Amino acid sequence: MKKQLPASPMLFPMPALLVGTYGEDGAPNAMTAAWAGACCHVPPCVGVAVRHNRLTFKNIDLKKAFTLNVPPVRLAAEVDYLGIVSGNDEPDKLARVRLDVSPGSKVDAPLIAGCPVNLECRLAQKIVLGSHAWFVGEVVAVHVDEELVDGKGKIDVAALDPLVYCTSTTDYRSLGGRVAGAYDVGNTLKKA
Amino acid sequence: MKKQLPASPMLFPMPALLVGTYGEDGAPNAMTAAWAGACCHVPPCVGVAVRHNRLTFKNIDLKKAFTLNVPPVRLAAEVDYLGIVSGNDEPDKLARVRLDVSPGSKVDAPLIAGCPVNLECRLAQKIVLGSHAWFVGEVVAVHVDEELVDGKGKIDVAALDPLVYCTSTTDYRSLGGRVAGAYDVGNTLKKA
Repeated sequence: MKKQLPASPMLFPMPALLVGTYGEDGAPNAMTAAWAGACCHVPPCVGVAVRHNRLTFKNIDLKKAFTLNVPPVRLAAEVDYLGIVSGNDEPDKLARVRLDVSPGSKVDAPLIAGCPVNLECRLAQKIVLGSHAWFVGEVVAVHVDEELVDGKGKIDVAALDPLVYCTSTTDYRSLGGRVAGAYDVGNTLKKA
Repeated sequence: MKKQLPASPMLFPMPALLVGTYGEDGAPNAMTAAWAGACCHVPPCVGVAVRHNRLTFKNIDLKKAFTLNVPPVRLAAEVDYLGIVSGNDEPDKLARVRLDVSPGSKVDAPLIAGCPVNLECRLAQKIVLGSHAWFVGEVVAVHVDEELVDGKGKIDVAALDPLVYCTSTTDYRSLGGRVAGAYDVGNTLKKA
């Protein structure tokens, strides 16, 4: 039997990402975002939901660019801090959590060095939905820690150890073991 | 050192969801989608990317509604099958994988019974991006297996055992253990 819960965007799992932006004065900022996802293959796009009152919202509007950065489990406290505290209230919050940044190669947004995967995104569309806007960015560059990439360009996901966010229980989890190959295990159900 | 990979929407982790729709003739369909995410708090919205040639694309356009369903790890083969095969080519694909559906309570889209979490979504916006459109749905009802919900309305995420999709390695994984509380562990980094 099913039980009804209040309407909310309750998906499992969610990524725990860092959104990197520069402000008017060139100061780097990072905001935690679990409300994000891949949006398009050609052109490659991702989207992220940002609340109107966040500094990130203003910065993306200003620079028409952002980065999405995939943090590892070991940065859980730093990631959480960057979600709790707005850059409006603490402009040096990246320094507090001791995360270094470097400039994007193609867009005016910072790469967060401690994150093994960084996506540079050029703002493609901004969809105002209500409390949040959904910023769609075209991915124009992808940087990955070289020791995580094999000869075929595949990422060692277990070594990446991405931080996972769970809504409802509002906690961070790690990724578990491999279950099966995609575009593969389903073939067992095809017609004989 | 970082290595550059080809531009793609490479986020970790992604959910492995089922998108439920009805066709013109009332036939239920389900498509696997890992490119999805929460978009807005008020009103509660989620989004999902769908390729133009999928039956799901046509069905959402027609009914202005869809469901997002969270499958458990035990349905990995069924989920993968529903991603490999389009409803255009096999209209009875839900029957093949033996997944039952029931009508949504508020929208004209089917709930997939074997999935412990079902979100009913009324189409709010359709953003054409390129190969894919991003369909934003307002969540108007949430159904959860009652044995997974505690007295406070929180979901037992470990028992839910949601299927996780990993891009790059293109495989399914399970969720790992709890790392820390969100809106909590970051407080350890606040000023003394």
